[in-house]
Amino acid sequence: MNDFKKIESLSRLIRYYILVSTTSAGSGHPSSSFSAVELMSTLFFCGFFKFDPDKPEYINNDRLIFSKGHASPLLYSLWAAAGAVNESKLMTLRDFNSDLEGHPTPRFKYAEASTGSLGQGLSIGFGMALSAKYIDKLPYRTYVLLGDSEMAEGSQWEAMQLASYYKLENLTAILDVNRLGQRGETMLGRNTSVYEERIKAFGWKTIIVNGHNIVEINEAYDKAVKIKDAPTMIIANTVKGKGVSFIEDIDGWHGKSLSKDQRDKALIELGRVDKDLIGELVSPANIEKAENKSGSSIKEKIDSSSYEVGDLMSTREAYGRALVRIYEDYPDMVVLDAEVSNSTYAKVFGDNFPKKFFEMFIAEQNMVGAALGLSLRGKIPFISTFAAFFSRAFDQIRMSQYSNTNIKFSGSHSGVSIGPDGASQMGLEDIAMFRTLINCSVFYPCDAVSTEALVRLSASFKGNVYIRTTRMNTPVIYENEESFKIGGSKVLRENSSDIITVCASGITLYEALKAYEELVKENIHIKIIDTYCIKPIDAKTIRAASLESKAIITVEDHFPEGGLGEAVCSIEGIDCPVHILAVRKMPRSGSPEQLLNYESISKEAIIKKVREIASS
Amino acid sequence: MNDFKKIESLSRLIRYYILVSTTSAGSGHPSSSFSAVELMSTLFFCGFFKFDPDKPEYINNDRLIFSKGHASPLLYSLWAAAGAVNESKLMTLRDFNSDLEGHPTPRFKYAEASTGSLGQGLSIGFGMALSAKYIDKLPYRTYVLLGDSEMAEGSQWEAMQLASYYKLENLTAILDVNRLGQRGETMLGRNTSVYEERIKAFGWKTIIVNGHNIVEINEAYDKAVKIKDAPTMIIANTVKGKGVSFIEDIDGWHGKSLSKDQRDKALIELGRVDKDLIGELVSPANIEKAENKSGSSIKEKIDSSSYEVGDLMSTREAYGRALVRIYEDYPDMVVLDAEVSNSTYAKVFGDNFPKKFFEMFIAEQNMVGAALGLSLRGKIPFISTFAAFFSRAFDQIRMSQYSNTNIKFSGSHSGVSIGPDGASQMGLEDIAMFRTLINCSVFYPCDAVSTEALVRLSASFKGNVYIRTTRMNTPVIYENEESFKIGGSKVLRENSSDIITVCASGITLYEALKAYEELVKENIHIKIIDTYCIKPIDAKTIRAASLESKAIITVEDHFPEGGLGEAVCSIEGIDCPVHILAVRKMPRSGSPEQLLNYESISKEAIIKKVREIASS
Repeated sequence: MNDFKKIESLSRLIRYYILVSTTSAGSGHPSSSFSAVELMSTLFFCGFFKFDPDKPEYINNDRLIFSKGHASPLLYSLWAAAGAVNESKLMTLRDFNSDLEGHPTPRFKYAEASTGSLGQGLSIGFGMALSAKYIDKLPYRTYVLLGDSEMAEGSQWEAMQLASYYKLENLTAILDVNRLGQRGETMLGRNTSVYEERIKAFGWKTIIVNGHNIVEINEAYDKAVKIKDAPTMIIANTVKGKGVSFIEDIDGWHGKSLSKDQRDKALIELGRVDKDLIGELVSPANIEKAENKSGSSIKEKIDSSSYEVGDLMSTREAYGRALVRIYEDYPDMVVLDAEVSNSTYAKVFGDNFPKKFFEMFIAEQNMVGAALGLSLRGKIPFISTFAAFFSRAFDQIRMSQYSNTNIKFSGSHSGVSIGPDGASQMGLEDIAMFRTLINCSVFYPCDAVSTEALVRLSASFKGNVYIRTTRMNTPVIYENEESFKIGGSKVLRENSSDIITVCASGITLYEALKAYEELVKENIHIKIIDTYCIKPIDAKTIRAASLESKAIITVEDHFPEGGLGEAVCSIEGIDCPVHILAVRKMPRSGSPEQLLNYESISKEAIIKKVREIASS
Repeated sequence: MNDFKKIESLSRLIRYYILVSTTSAGSGHPSSSFSAVELMSTLFFCGFFKFDPDKPEYINNDRLIFSKGHASPLLYSLWAAAGAVNESKLMTLRDFNSDLEGHPTPRFKYAEASTGSLGQGLSIGFGMALSAKYIDKLPYRTYVLLGDSEMAEGSQWEAMQLASYYKLENLTAILDVNRLGQRGETMLGRNTSVYEERIKAFGWKTIIVNGHNIVEINEAYDKAVKIKDAPTMIIANTVKGKGVSFIEDIDGWHGKSLSKDQRDKALIELGRVDKDLIGELVSPANIEKAENKSGSSIKEKIDSSSYEVGDLMSTREAYGRALVRIYEDYPDMVVLDAEVSNSTYAKVFGDNFPKKFFEMFIAEQNMVGAALGLSLRGKIPFISTFAAFFSRAFDQIRMSQYSNTNIKFSGSHSGVSIGPDGASQMGLEDIAMFRTLINCSVFYPCDAVSTEALVRLSASFKGNVYIRTTRMNTPVIYENEESFKIGGSKVLRENSSDIITVCASGITLYEALKAYEELVKENIHIKIIDTYCIKPIDAKTIRAASLESKAIITVEDHFPEGGLGEAVCSIEGIDCPVHILAVRKMPRSGSPEQLLNYESISKEAIIKKVREIASS
């Protein structure tokens, strides 16, 4: 029997903290925080949420994600009520030097992930629950607090369908139906039965509660933890602004803090709070994580012998093979793919290690969110789809940089060189997209050897990486012993009489090498650099080349904006003109050769540009 | 009474065309085309699809979108069966010089939009149906052919919920449940009852049919056109590869054409086809479009008097006001917003012209798809959300460039200067994203006058535009008469003794102007250029400045990659070093001033950099 009176008192204390901290900050979302107070205080202090505040990283702690990140004042106040944050710290809310940011980030040690771009928390929770059930086999539970507005995001339904597909009974979401969005009523308003119908249809168990009734909420959590083989959604009827009569259920109070006068009025309504009250969290069961080994036999032997120079293999295939080859050294690896694993070659890994491969179907947003969750639980997710289709998840990718994640993205079918499938399938903006991420490395290997080396390198350090692969076969040009590094490049052709430097990566590197062969016959010498690492770009080598060159030509199977060319242009100290050969005309179907020519990124285009510069 | 025998014969002919064209191309998706043959032949030739093939653009033609774009051989063959494409043309499928691309593009005059990135067609159809019902008030219907795999995309459910919210009975979708995805079975396999449950829960009417039974399909369409106040989904049980026994319902046949031997074997199975048979389309009713006028009175008068230099107003507010002011001149304008119209100020338009404003709720992907559909029906959609949240719809934005659309995107809350809300809400990669689009202009106004001028300019030409706005107030610096152009810039400060040129846009322009005032006291003169158009960048003016400058400094509230700095660096013929001041440190909550300083894009940072260069 829980002491519901104490939960009520704690709820009052939490409301007090929300009030004073947001008014002190002069901004924030008190009304959206108030609606979920009882939902969270009951979760925390009725014994459901099992967590050791002294060891937030402990493997068997329950996990709580605030998908409605704007309710951050509630998150911080909840932890204050648990005794882990004091009131004076709460008063630093939204300050530059505070870790209590406007929307939660992992700078606050009890925030699991950065949230605030709506509709992303459920995918993160899905990834954590997947990790617990299928990989670590740990009993901890994952809770996700959802807003009602954000249910309009398609990403929610991606997460919903996959959570039921994978039968994640260890995942409980709490839907705070407070009726009001930012600028008025939500699409479904107070229609909880429609929410229920939709959520049920997506394979979840549902429980509808009065979100301010602690007894009902307590029963709901109690029921949820006993459900088998399906995730549960607690659908809570709540009141936005609950607890402060003059803002309750009133439009126009989203994202607004109360003035000091309003706060004082609200504090009178709230009544006496007991600041000495501390809510107690139940400790999680003490469990050692089983050692993470594959446990599954290798079905298909991937030849462990080396590649030979001249071997023909696409870099996408080399990617899939590399995953298998490196797995033994990185048993925390998990591979996800968005229903194209026979094209990205992630399938090769899945066939060998089915327990570490998870089919994500054509739902790229959820795949990235899941990878984020897996990464935060110590896994090394390698996730793949066509380079073009990562654009689908740019918001999730963008948000991942704010959660210090360790995700390895691999995009296949880059550029016009995919040929007849046409523009919709061509990744032509993926380099630009991934280059914007702080601290994300961008690799673009040209052959099987460099692909394998870069996949291994990716696994070896903590941080996000993008690996761009190519559809068509390319010949191996590197010896197996060749080493590759972050921020590196390879000078493949050089001569004391070089007058022009060509920087190229992936498919266009071969065009550059072919151009070299022709030009050398005319006694025109070009230096060729394989810029296999586009971020960070090898500034030192390229800068040095620029001092000895009349010009640099960059060649890329990508739009000019944000790609290799601009990466080279923006190196400080480049001392010669840079000419960017890139995809500038509307792409279309055709053969790879036709398209490389059409876009002036082929051997011929390079030769033409070199001659033009040489003779000027 | 329809002649179902003829539909059968036409279906056989269509299968013949699919077979011979894909085998001739050596690639393509015959199996995915075969499963939907009867669904489409019945739609076209049983009198449902009303279309004048001689006037594809006729305003009252029904519309058909192949969301499963990989079934393009079916689309082309369907039109061949209608007599609009001949067999020799079909044999150019996927050729460089053919408009029969691997996935449909509007180069083929009967393709409504470019498709092939799955899960986008329904939003496009939604936009068209919205246009027909609420704007043009035309009786034509919109049909969308969906694949079952793509139902995993969250964007589908965004479109589903909004189509029922807007009660679009003029929208019919056909779900081709052929069970198999690219690499195996779909998430729901043949479980049509689960599809039905989900689709119903999202407010649609549903009809389950055998997708190869013409009588059943005919009945379904007949029923669908009579349903009121809700869109209809025809859920069809089909067989992938139907009609060719050795590929029917067999995994491993996705995206594969038959060899010539296999084709010949299949043709024998298919039996005799009558190539002289031509399917007839029913003509649409001849209707003149009503003149497009607002019809609603202006509720809130937007002061039509001019802005005064020194007036304080955020560019986001100026955006909303500009929409109202220009509407009279552009009555085809439609405004959409993703549930943040009080922040983007699109609300100002909505309050004045409620019939031309559509709330899209927090579903950015569908908003962009809807804009695409509206644009293709002759509207000028202005769509807005936070700059950061357009990243959610990058795939839809990317695809729009392949449909020759006319969408005006406006992203508010750009950069770290939004302050305390933190990184999740900051648009820091939006310039990079929109710059990658072929032919998309990127505008970044600094004050109310330039915002209004650029909004007006955006409406005046056909093409995609991105307008980046700022959260905080900025003073008006331009006279109302000032003119702005695509590819333009403004030199705001110059002097014969300028040694350094500073290029800045939006919020950082004011930092540059403040830096100027301080530096001038030290007798250091800098040229200041307002680069209000980032794409196409004003190469001529900046190049000229570079010839007279020791260095160019660019300053932007955006990540360095793909932003203003790289746009300037990549101008051919820049004759001095370029230093990029941009957001390089992990952003966080704080005051705008603190954050501009922290990221070294403030007045102080500019002064420091200028002094450094001046003294070097």
